[in-house]
Amino acid sequence: MTQTTFHVRTPGPGLVEITEEVARWLPPRDGLLTLFLRHTSASLLIQENADPEVQTDLLAWLSRLVPPSIDPSLGYLTHTYEGPDDMPGHIRAMLLPVSLSIPVERGRMLLGRWQGLFVFEHRDRPHDREVAAHFLG
Amino acid sequence: MTQTTFHVRTPGPGLVEITEEVARWLPPRDGLLTLFLRHTSASLLIQENADPEVQTDLLAWLSRLVPPSIDPSLGYLTHTYEGPDDMPGHIRAMLLPVSLSIPVERGRMLLGRWQGLFVFEHRDRPHDREVAAHFLG
Amino acid sequence: MTQTTFHVRTPGPGLVEITEEVARWLPPRDGLLTLFLRHTSASLLIQENADPEVQTDLLAWLSRLVPPSIDPSLGYLTHTYEGPDDMPGHIRAMLLPVSLSIPVERGRMLLGRWQGLFVFEHRDRPHDREVAAHFLG
Repeated sequence: MTQTTFHVRTPGPGLVEITEEVARWLPPRDGLLTLFLRHTSASLLIQENADPEVQTDLLAWLSRLVPPSIDPSLGYLTHTYEGPDDMPGHIRAMLLPVSLSIPVERGRMLLGRWQGLFVFEHRDRPHDREVAAHFLG
Repeated sequence: MTQTTFHVRTPGPGLVEITEEVARWLPPRDGLLTLFLRHTSASLLIQENADPEVQTDLLAWLSRLVPPSIDPSLGYLTHTYEGPDDMPGHIRAMLLPVSLSIPVERGRMLLGRWQGLFVFEHRDRPHDREVAAHFLG
Repeated sequence: MTQTTFHVRTPGPGLVEITEEVARWLPPRDGLLTLFLRHTSASLLIQENADPEVQTDLLAWLSRLVPPSIDPSLGYLTHTYEGPDDMPGHIRAMLLPVSLSIPVERGRMLLGRWQGLFVFEHRDRPHDREVAAHFLG
């Protein structure tokens, strides 16, 4: 059993890929990798990493489903004093994963051909995010 | 490896925090905690536990995204004989976590500073919910 | 520790139950089962398996939240060259689980009475999907 923490700097809303960084950390054994994001306004996500348009569209869609809290449609929200991106960030984080578990074979995550591993930032400004990692094998 | 079941009484729609109860159960070792909710109209959730307004807003937003099935916008639903809160409960449960995995360091979950652990009830009436817990370490 | 891959043929949009197939594979011990779907336009889901109307309604609701990309409401999407069901498939996959962890007792998953285990196909055509499985116990 091995544990570490990955530190990920995000530049604002959108996806930051961490596949390579996580892959390099894994020992060359069979096992199970668990990742856990220690924040309430960002998410982990596994999604297509081939065409960057997919990431653009995921952000565009989520930004429309949960717009900034100054949007009139969200006039009922009460937790608004931390800025118009804060409560929408919590809502987006409610909908996307905070933890992920991935089987590992001889040190290689069993990701599908098109799958990459991302931190999805929901706040407007850059943030330092921590991903706790646990490998058992 | 240790397993238990947490029994959680919910008072109707909204979040019931279980962070302390789960924390007390953990042995003082490194390991991996997995929680699994044994129901299809409630969820597990990790979210901010500092300001209760966040929980109010999460419920308010989800209740608008998936209103009771008597809402005209949901007139196409077919599974309505268990009450107007039943099928929306399943839909909400589809969107939020049923299982969570959290790395543990010397008996302490590696939750971020603002993260709490909740059962999110989607039905109108109080329910007895079971959370199966697995600790490996 | 044991690993395998389940191969699941999907007939197009909707849920394919895999509860029995997974249950048969488990060794008769206590442990932890982790499932991981190796695709970016399908999902894993635990939901009610008693009344098939629930599955019909889950698909109907999700299809309205994220319609085909030819829908005028999605005119801003850029990743459309793989067909009108492709980018919506990625969006739906963003919202539903890609991995699930379930405690196991004497070889039996601790599913609730109404819970079944499904692969949720988001693409229009039939697909061959792979679910990587890891059992630790």
